[in-house]
Amino acid sequence: MNSFLKDKIKKIVGIDNYFDSLEDKLCYSYDGTPIFQHLPEAVVFPENEEQISLIVKLANQEKFNIVPRGAGTGLSGGAIPVENSIVLVMTKWNNILEVDTQNLTATVQPGVVTGILQKEVEKYGLFYPPDPGSLTVCTIGGNIANNAGGLRGLKYGVTKNYVLGTEIILPDGELLRTGGKNMKDVAGYNLRDFIVGSEGTLGIITKILLRLIPKPQQSITMLAYFDKLADSAKSVSGVIASHIVPSMMEFLDNTTINCIEDYTNIGLPRNSEAILLIEVDGWGSIVEEDAETIINILKKNNTSFVRKAANDEEALTLKTARRSAFSALARRRPTTILEDATVPRSELPVMIEKVTEAARNFNVTFGNFGHAGDGNLHPTCLTDERDNDEITRAHKAFDFIFNETIKLGGTITGEHGTGLAKKHFLEKAVGIPAVEMMKRIKSAIDPNNIINPGKIFSISPRCEEYFSVGNRR
Amino acid sequence: MNSFLKDKIKKIVGIDNYFDSLEDKLCYSYDGTPIFQHLPEAVVFPENEEQISLIVKLANQEKFNIVPRGAGTGLSGGAIPVENSIVLVMTKWNNILEVDTQNLTATVQPGVVTGILQKEVEKYGLFYPPDPGSLTVCTIGGNIANNAGGLRGLKYGVTKNYVLGTEIILPDGELLRTGGKNMKDVAGYNLRDFIVGSEGTLGIITKILLRLIPKPQQSITMLAYFDKLADSAKSVSGVIASHIVPSMMEFLDNTTINCIEDYTNIGLPRNSEAILLIEVDGWGSIVEEDAETIINILKKNNTSFVRKAANDEEALTLKTARRSAFSALARRRPTTILEDATVPRSELPVMIEKVTEAARNFNVTFGNFGHAGDGNLHPTCLTDERDNDEITRAHKAFDFIFNETIKLGGTITGEHGTGLAKKHFLEKAVGIPAVEMMKRIKSAIDPNNIINPGKIFSISPRCEEYFSVGNRR
Repeated sequence: MNSFLKDKIKKIVGIDNYFDSLEDKLCYSYDGTPIFQHLPEAVVFPENEEQISLIVKLANQEKFNIVPRGAGTGLSGGAIPVENSIVLVMTKWNNILEVDTQNLTATVQPGVVTGILQKEVEKYGLFYPPDPGSLTVCTIGGNIANNAGGLRGLKYGVTKNYVLGTEIILPDGELLRTGGKNMKDVAGYNLRDFIVGSEGTLGIITKILLRLIPKPQQSITMLAYFDKLADSAKSVSGVIASHIVPSMMEFLDNTTINCIEDYTNIGLPRNSEAILLIEVDGWGSIVEEDAETIINILKKNNTSFVRKAANDEEALTLKTARRSAFSALARRRPTTILEDATVPRSELPVMIEKVTEAARNFNVTFGNFGHAGDGNLHPTCLTDERDNDEITRAHKAFDFIFNETIKLGGTITGEHGTGLAKKHFLEKAVGIPAVEMMKRIKSAIDPNNIINPGKIFSISPRCEEYFSVGNRR
Repeated sequence: MNSFLKDKIKKIVGIDNYFDSLEDKLCYSYDGTPIFQHLPEAVVFPENEEQISLIVKLANQEKFNIVPRGAGTGLSGGAIPVENSIVLVMTKWNNILEVDTQNLTATVQPGVVTGILQKEVEKYGLFYPPDPGSLTVCTIGGNIANNAGGLRGLKYGVTKNYVLGTEIILPDGELLRTGGKNMKDVAGYNLRDFIVGSEGTLGIITKILLRLIPKPQQSITMLAYFDKLADSAKSVSGVIASHIVPSMMEFLDNTTINCIEDYTNIGLPRNSEAILLIEVDGWGSIVEEDAETIINILKKNNTSFVRKAANDEEALTLKTARRSAFSALARRRPTTILEDATVPRSELPVMIEKVTEAARNFNVTFGNFGHAGDGNLHPTCLTDERDNDEITRAHKAFDFIFNETIKLGGTITGEHGTGLAKKHFLEKAVGIPAVEMMKRIKSAIDPNNIINPGKIFSISPRCEEYFSVGNRR
């Protein structure tokens, strides 16, 4: 990118919102995904829709690429800069514009931190359920780009279930408005839900309308230990079969338990093969009844120890410990590759076995945890990117895991997105006609392929050179 | 369409599945939408995916159009034949292929009747919530094509919330598989949800995987009468503000009450300006508590009479009466135009007023009823298509209603779809960039524009001649 073009960009966003020193570019050369890294040509912080529109129009003219990003907590490389790109950072767009207590909606800018929004709406007795692991730092815009999940997916669904509307600057610079405050809307194609999970490849989200729900009155958090991994998996199936829908049903294996215990020292059982952290919530006495039913199911499935959190504070400690799983595992070795293979719930016991098998066969260390109620596991490889041989084995282990996932009718990504990290698996996972259709839609909307190109799939091979599977090493 | 081409089609589906007598074509020349009608060239009942694929490929070669349909209960003209088209009828694809009690899913063919599916899964203690008014006759395939709603939308959402996967023959004859039994899946673009609500314009759905939920243990149905329309609207807002989410909150105005009473004779109050039919459901004592809270809200808002259904049988009678609203209204005059203007919930009282105003200003009769909890009204014009002057006034009244809806931040269709009936309102409702994007996607997927062309929007003007607004008259 020549200095003449850089000056044009600087003129659009203003000198205070433009950065291209090596130090600045380095800060935006990576996201939460290990190993992937690439320097952008520049980093910009646009101030309004008009600036974004002008940048997009310029990118079409001058054929440079735009990589939009929020907090950069993504785990599939969706916010990694590509060749000849500028990073467009939306973190300063962090205002909650409205909480509408009559229609139970919130209007927010994309840079609002998810956890802050949750606290804000709780002041009104309302509830924004999606709670990705990174909720204290990640932004709503990124949540929408990736259709983020979280711990409460089983009962409450994922981000897309709470998006009522978006405003987005399209690849031609026009502003698209989707949705509205209507609870039902079938006017034309469902563009709103299509934008959710499109990983920043269809435009830049500038405003979001979210659906809120009444905050459940009470919740009970339970913790159960298991000597045998298989018993924890059977317990999960038992709860699903009982037709109780917990608001949380989290699984942690022995490696994860020990890493969390090293990190938090809250007294988790270092010798247990697995623990389950289960929460039920709702209104009235049924919450207590559900908890008792679940405890009986756990006992029938040989839990070695089960108890209810004594109070809200203890419940929060347990949930915070679970949320720290990624950070805790990340302290063990220099490189932490966290994935999100997801299978039909009935296949969870098989899948847990397959992760153990992968670790054994390829001689690598895996921590395994995840949203058991959803069949959404986070097999996490603790490795070191400087060790070529080990990294190669780690990748082979993941290849094995994803192939097994697909055989079980599962998906390569439950909540992290495809990005760069899993694009080479996409065809196998969803089939050639699906990828072909995705490419056609992308080309129809972004004919010059300038908005976050090379993510999810490749239209042109130019981004491939930088991020083939091999280059992840 | 010449006889040489017709013979080719006949050869693909077999002589027993091909019809082109005038009587047969007449039967498939209309759907549930009044006034629209057009003769197809032929009607076919394909037996398997291969036949559908061959027909689609032939249509691309020979440039004829395919209009897929199920039971034809649609209310926006989505299944009306277009110029040079064959109707492809899927009603014989009516098998429930699997009920998976471990993963809580059902795999069905598109021709399964919604109500039959519901009864079947209830045998397993499971629940398929979407319940369009036509559920005893409409098919799941059509529900998905239109993202059908129903009476339980407020608490349980609409069809799209229960679609886990689809198989669909694309406009190029390839089979696309979307989704699967995973509760979470973000691999690539969300094609699955994009197919839902695409009104048969992106391909022919051949298989569907549905999400089921545990059936609520109990429900309480309440009926409340109001002397003043405004008090019923205030009651609805009051219930929403109380943070109780009823499984049903239906509104009926005086005209609708009288038509239903003429038809059913169950003792509805002929002099009330409005009634509300409210149901709460769930588990445990909270259901009873919620019902009491709601009754207090109704009393505070001047209900003249309120009671709980004494038993399940009475509750069913009341709900069946509500479900008969359309049929009951349809007995009053020869032509019944039922629409589904939907507004943010807080605007419901204004919208109810606007329908009254439309009836008065344009001197036409409206019955008004609908899903009050969703802000989804069904203003229904009782008219006579043979009376040109009255029909013109009716259309002007609807123009007024939709313009007011849009001004209130509402949508032109909450659950019926855009089809032919509302395509001329689409640009005003969703904006030019949105319609432009829809057209680009349609063209990318169906370059010859052969699958249900001219529905939702027009790519080429040729379908316009048949179905301009004027021609609805």
